[in-house]
Amino acid sequence: MSDVKKVVLAYSGGLDTSVIAKWLSEEYNCEVVTFTADLGQGEEVEPARAKAEALGIKEIYIDDLREEFARDFVFPMFRANAIYEGEYLLGTSIARPLISKRLIEIANETGADAIAHGATGKGNDQVRFELGAYALKPGVKVIAPWREWDLNSREKLMAYCEQHNIAVEQKKGKKSPYSMDANLLHISYEGGILEDPYAEPEEDMWLWTVSPENAPDEPTYIELTYEKGDVVAIDGVAKTPAEVMIELNKIAGANGIGRADIVENRYVGMKSRGCYETPAGTVLIRAHRAIESITLDRDAAHTKDELMPKYAELVYNGYWWSPERKMLQAAIDATQEYVSGNVRLKLYKGNVVVVGRKSENSLFDESIATFEDDAGAYNQKDAEGFIRLNSLRLRIASSKGRNMLDD
Amino acid sequence: MSDVKKVVLAYSGGLDTSVIAKWLSEEYNCEVVTFTADLGQGEEVEPARAKAEALGIKEIYIDDLREEFARDFVFPMFRANAIYEGEYLLGTSIARPLISKRLIEIANETGADAIAHGATGKGNDQVRFELGAYALKPGVKVIAPWREWDLNSREKLMAYCEQHNIAVEQKKGKKSPYSMDANLLHISYEGGILEDPYAEPEEDMWLWTVSPENAPDEPTYIELTYEKGDVVAIDGVAKTPAEVMIELNKIAGANGIGRADIVENRYVGMKSRGCYETPAGTVLIRAHRAIESITLDRDAAHTKDELMPKYAELVYNGYWWSPERKMLQAAIDATQEYVSGNVRLKLYKGNVVVVGRKSENSLFDESIATFEDDAGAYNQKDAEGFIRLNSLRLRIASSKGRNMLDD
Amino acid sequence: MSDVKKVVLAYSGGLDTSVIAKWLSEEYNCEVVTFTADLGQGEEVEPARAKAEALGIKEIYIDDLREEFARDFVFPMFRANAIYEGEYLLGTSIARPLISKRLIEIANETGADAIAHGATGKGNDQVRFELGAYALKPGVKVIAPWREWDLNSREKLMAYCEQHNIAVEQKKGKKSPYSMDANLLHISYEGGILEDPYAEPEEDMWLWTVSPENAPDEPTYIELTYEKGDVVAIDGVAKTPAEVMIELNKIAGANGIGRADIVENRYVGMKSRGCYETPAGTVLIRAHRAIESITLDRDAAHTKDELMPKYAELVYNGYWWSPERKMLQAAIDATQEYVSGNVRLKLYKGNVVVVGRKSENSLFDESIATFEDDAGAYNQKDAEGFIRLNSLRLRIASSKGRNMLDD
Amino acid sequence: MSDVKKVVLAYSGGLDTSVIAKWLSEEYNCEVVTFTADLGQGEEVEPARAKAEALGIKEIYIDDLREEFARDFVFPMFRANAIYEGEYLLGTSIARPLISKRLIEIANETGADAIAHGATGKGNDQVRFELGAYALKPGVKVIAPWREWDLNSREKLMAYCEQHNIAVEQKKGKKSPYSMDANLLHISYEGGILEDPYAEPEEDMWLWTVSPENAPDEPTYIELTYEKGDVVAIDGVAKTPAEVMIELNKIAGANGIGRADIVENRYVGMKSRGCYETPAGTVLIRAHRAIESITLDRDAAHTKDELMPKYAELVYNGYWWSPERKMLQAAIDATQEYVSGNVRLKLYKGNVVVVGRKSENSLFDESIATFEDDAGAYNQKDAEGFIRLNSLRLRIASSKGRNMLDD
Repeated sequence: MSDVKKVVLAYSGGLDTSVIAKWLSEEYNCEVVTFTADLGQGEEVEPARAKAEALGIKEIYIDDLREEFARDFVFPMFRANAIYEGEYLLGTSIARPLISKRLIEIANETGADAIAHGATGKGNDQVRFELGAYALKPGVKVIAPWREWDLNSREKLMAYCEQHNIAVEQKKGKKSPYSMDANLLHISYEGGILEDPYAEPEEDMWLWTVSPENAPDEPTYIELTYEKGDVVAIDGVAKTPAEVMIELNKIAGANGIGRADIVENRYVGMKSRGCYETPAGTVLIRAHRAIESITLDRDAAHTKDELMPKYAELVYNGYWWSPERKMLQAAIDATQEYVSGNVRLKLYKGNVVVVGRKSENSLFDESIATFEDDAGAYNQKDAEGFIRLNSLRLRIASSKGRNMLDD
Repeated sequence: MSDVKKVVLAYSGGLDTSVIAKWLSEEYNCEVVTFTADLGQGEEVEPARAKAEALGIKEIYIDDLREEFARDFVFPMFRANAIYEGEYLLGTSIARPLISKRLIEIANETGADAIAHGATGKGNDQVRFELGAYALKPGVKVIAPWREWDLNSREKLMAYCEQHNIAVEQKKGKKSPYSMDANLLHISYEGGILEDPYAEPEEDMWLWTVSPENAPDEPTYIELTYEKGDVVAIDGVAKTPAEVMIELNKIAGANGIGRADIVENRYVGMKSRGCYETPAGTVLIRAHRAIESITLDRDAAHTKDELMPKYAELVYNGYWWSPERKMLQAAIDATQEYVSGNVRLKLYKGNVVVVGRKSENSLFDESIATFEDDAGAYNQKDAEGFIRLNSLRLRIASSKGRNMLDD
Repeated sequence: MSDVKKVVLAYSGGLDTSVIAKWLSEEYNCEVVTFTADLGQGEEVEPARAKAEALGIKEIYIDDLREEFARDFVFPMFRANAIYEGEYLLGTSIARPLISKRLIEIANETGADAIAHGATGKGNDQVRFELGAYALKPGVKVIAPWREWDLNSREKLMAYCEQHNIAVEQKKGKKSPYSMDANLLHISYEGGILEDPYAEPEEDMWLWTVSPENAPDEPTYIELTYEKGDVVAIDGVAKTPAEVMIELNKIAGANGIGRADIVENRYVGMKSRGCYETPAGTVLIRAHRAIESITLDRDAAHTKDELMPKYAELVYNGYWWSPERKMLQAAIDATQEYVSGNVRLKLYKGNVVVVGRKSENSLFDESIATFEDDAGAYNQKDAEGFIRLNSLRLRIASSKGRNMLDD
Repeated sequence: MSDVKKVVLAYSGGLDTSVIAKWLSEEYNCEVVTFTADLGQGEEVEPARAKAEALGIKEIYIDDLREEFARDFVFPMFRANAIYEGEYLLGTSIARPLISKRLIEIANETGADAIAHGATGKGNDQVRFELGAYALKPGVKVIAPWREWDLNSREKLMAYCEQHNIAVEQKKGKKSPYSMDANLLHISYEGGILEDPYAEPEEDMWLWTVSPENAPDEPTYIELTYEKGDVVAIDGVAKTPAEVMIELNKIAGANGIGRADIVENRYVGMKSRGCYETPAGTVLIRAHRAIESITLDRDAAHTKDELMPKYAELVYNGYWWSPERKMLQAAIDATQEYVSGNVRLKLYKGNVVVVGRKSENSLFDESIATFEDDAGAYNQKDAEGFIRLNSLRLRIASSKGRNMLDD
């Protein structure tokens, strides 16, 4: 426990990582560099500076990573229509590789030989942080205090604070019973009564969205403009990726959109209950499919659908910085060249309804699809040969006496 | 056009198939057997008898297939969590193989050498009917009048009716501008203004659901009981598969649930706009995932997710009676042994919210997942080795100088 | 049958396509342009000029496409380790999209509105030619005489020749009983006694390889140099892609390597027996995996393996010029950046034995893999945590009473 | 290290596991039960009894598991055509779950609370043993001495033997420099000069096969009879599964068949060089595909090919006793109902050549596949519609100006 000279800590400014900062310098007798990122979690990050200084930290990094996060992580992931286990939009997962990347960059800049994080030994985040860190700096030492120390209760943490003169903020009202994480894409809740999967979450848990019940009685219509698979404008107004997320979170959250309540399978092997608010993401996942529905080739779309679960699993498990995620991304991105155009959406009390899509690249061909006379654009007689040959193998099998029905 | 002696026609009793019945007997100079199925489309099927008799049909089959449809087609498909192209619940697709099966059974019973259907040459249904028919009776002659005749407009059809004394029902109000199909799982709409994918459907198109706006202001809570992947009770009351569909359609439809508006890729190669109301199915797709979320092993679940797009494509394209669908079904069914338990749902203005799941087979283990002290159920130190070895290949690659970041 | 003004014919100079050339000008009353490609089939292409001239052809294209074929088609396919149905190296399939491309280019240059080919209506080649042509020039008219005319026997063809003064070459010896196709990658045989899948092919059928029995009693050792997934040198001598194919065909064929005898599933729905000689390809498929084995990341390799069957099917079915083949190619090519180095092979009487691989990019790390003391490069204790967490879900399931054995 | 009362040890009778037996009783102060299995490794297992007795073992299990191994593990795996990373036939991997199963059965019979094995902390076998054990008895304690002790060199092991009076067999000749494992399916070699992947193995390493050079100059022809995917007879003589393996190993090994020399990716994250002799398996993998080639439906075969890499990975990684392996097995087995018939093979100097296949279930239909007149069994005109509709999406895309060529 002694050969670490300098460690970069992913520092939120909160109690836990403040204790970790102190504990690291004590236990490892090493310098601690703090890194605090604005990923759009909705809290000021600048106050972390004073707190770090109060802990005696000399090298303090505070970065606004919102644009990079939205542009290089969230948007590429939505090109893949990624959903984990049919429900989860990967809000926490997708933020971790960026934090790992910055931790390692800062380690390299400051000559640190270790990084540290405040994730527990039971969750996915430790894996995501560390897989990223190891991929980018294979010899780095990773310190995960929650797996090492014995400060495994609130009481012990408070005692440690008192003992080491760490200021404990007295938040107004009672402390949230939930473990939470937030960024531009979502806010998550775990723990507390959620540990009973039959218990419905209480309304006051949800922080980012109104309930469908409390959402406006009038729908909101918006129109998203896509270029090569990414949203570039809302209602005709150009937006950066981070602006898209911020704006959509606001609009969708106000319409009761984006709540999810699921039991998911963690990479470390257990099932866990999580609740999520992902307002912008819930709009984007529908809208991206809608723009693809008129601009993307069928078989490219189906191939994407077949690759998606694996892609989502890779992101969930923390393999963003891996050859296999990159090769899937190459395939996905290769399909997005013509995924441009507009999607019109109706947002109403929790519902995201696609009500229109149009594109200069549209492959929807009214002259062929029409139920009316198509002036010869499509020869219905072609269908007979199509069916005859597609059924040939089945006809042969059946004619040889095979049972084609269910057994 | 002359070697057909007897043909079994999928007969709805409507104008188009009435014309077809007459046309078949004229053009092919053959006997016509009609087959009309109650698949839960919500219209009486018995009136088809008198209409068929009026056309001079001697052999008339009218079957209530609702239980078989729900039990042997809809339910197995929902075990797979099948969704086509991220949106479509396959309501039309799943009904076709059953109709094919009955057409062939009736052909065998009546000594018919041909079957006929009223699907057009542009759509998927012709493929689904015919693949099924060829698989089950490889030498059968299939007659698809819409691909053969020149009665390709409403006017010509009406003229044919007049000429051949076919009674044309005068429906009240104006004729629906949409091409529709319905069964226990859904009702579909195509054509008319939907041929412009940027046009929002008019409210009065939807027949089975109220709009979210018009749905009750109070949510409805229901609880579904699953056994081996299938719903067997609603709110504790045992139901047959068809009863489950009927009841859930009623409850969900009343809460504005189940509308979909999509552009899909047809098997014959074109994109087409379709609107669907699938109230029960929209509930089931969420609820089945919810019961799986606590009872199904992670890697079985992920493997199911990887297989699902192919399975859905097979159903969509009409390959129900195929070796590849059956092998996937075997895999899926092998996972459902423990998928039993209860799912509690809140239905509210278009939203299906899972609010609770419980099962005697639950794999959710609170003692391990807890954020509280787990009394040693899980050793956090195991995570370090887990991460170290999962990252080994990445560390080696990185240490050999490979660029692990995006290019 | 009359609105064609000019047609580009894929012309081999043989009897069949000579008849087709004449037939096209007679039946369609149109100009015929001939296109003859040197794809390495091992026959002179220049004689096709005189034959075409004798048929009255005015526009005659004769192209040496060997380098383009090897570089842009064969090599990208081998990066994917593509094998169809476990056995077939896709020698015919991969040549078709290039021919389609040139047919369309020539059609565009000469103002032709149609193309024609000599493939039958039962095989895959018609599909491959036409899918390519339609993708590249969607309005093109495709003429496939074998599907149209009644010259469906040798006798009728000969009668047509006599009637139309088409010179029939008198080949020495008896005509081959096999339908054959050849290019740089392979020569194929179909028909004749091969139509009985229980019949062993006769030794004198094989034209490119000696039998293992007749191959030298001494092995030949060669070393291939790879750069980014492609062979660039043999035994240290730089080679172009076509030279690689030519040289390897010679060396491998002389060692009895490359024969395959299979029953394959055609895209049009029937099974068919084919024999193939693919000397260079048989070496390349082994060698490429060998260089990947030390340079490619495990999970990228496994992902490639999962994508390969679909990729091979696309090539086999004729979807080279499709969005889905291109997206898979993007994924595959993204993995080949570090696939460079040397593979040493022993060729002996039909056997291709990999006897060594080395690379500056090797990920094989002797210091970790060694059975000897590894000086701490790998911590064996990590394995315990790795196994404990990978088994967690299984332990939980088992502890809840699930039967984990086969039923 | 003290709460173990009784441990079941996978005991070979060799030096390493003899040391382990003693070390377990010393370190854990517990009873040791030995289990020695005959899996067809080609060595007597009965001598292990005396050795165990000499070590003071009271409960000694010696089982002939050859039939169970061949029938319930090897054969189901070959139904899947499983190959890991394109080369490895999984000879070691497939034996481990059976050993785990017996270890646990014996633990249950003898009231043991732990199992132990002699696999190192770097390899796959520890994972396979332990995943199996944990799946079947989740609370079992697993002891892996190689991960715990400090006897990490030959010298220390010998010293331990001397100190504890463990008899060390003096084998004739020098000790093999390779780490080996053998069973009915294969014998493997690792370590020694193989740790340099550019070094060719020496001829005298190979124990089970003659070299192709030394194999007979005359080929051997054999005929295998399949029933539902499994070999049931050789040359017409009925055989049990184990007999099939024994007989084929003999015949194939004598013809120089079955050597493999590969660099593979271990589950624990490193690349490793392994050489394998798998004579029977090399014949079976070809023969099974051959019988499938005439009896299995195309799309079932292609689906199997797509699932195979995952299946092989599961077996390699040790997940035999897992829900996901079982669901894939269900899919695979569902395809084998008609995979019956005969395959004729020519074995010659390392080559396995399929020279004939026949089956009462054959789907090869000469009347359709023929190049000769098929008397109307197949309508060539059907192909036009087939191609027209399969190309429709490509034609539409191209007509809208999309670039269909490679970029």
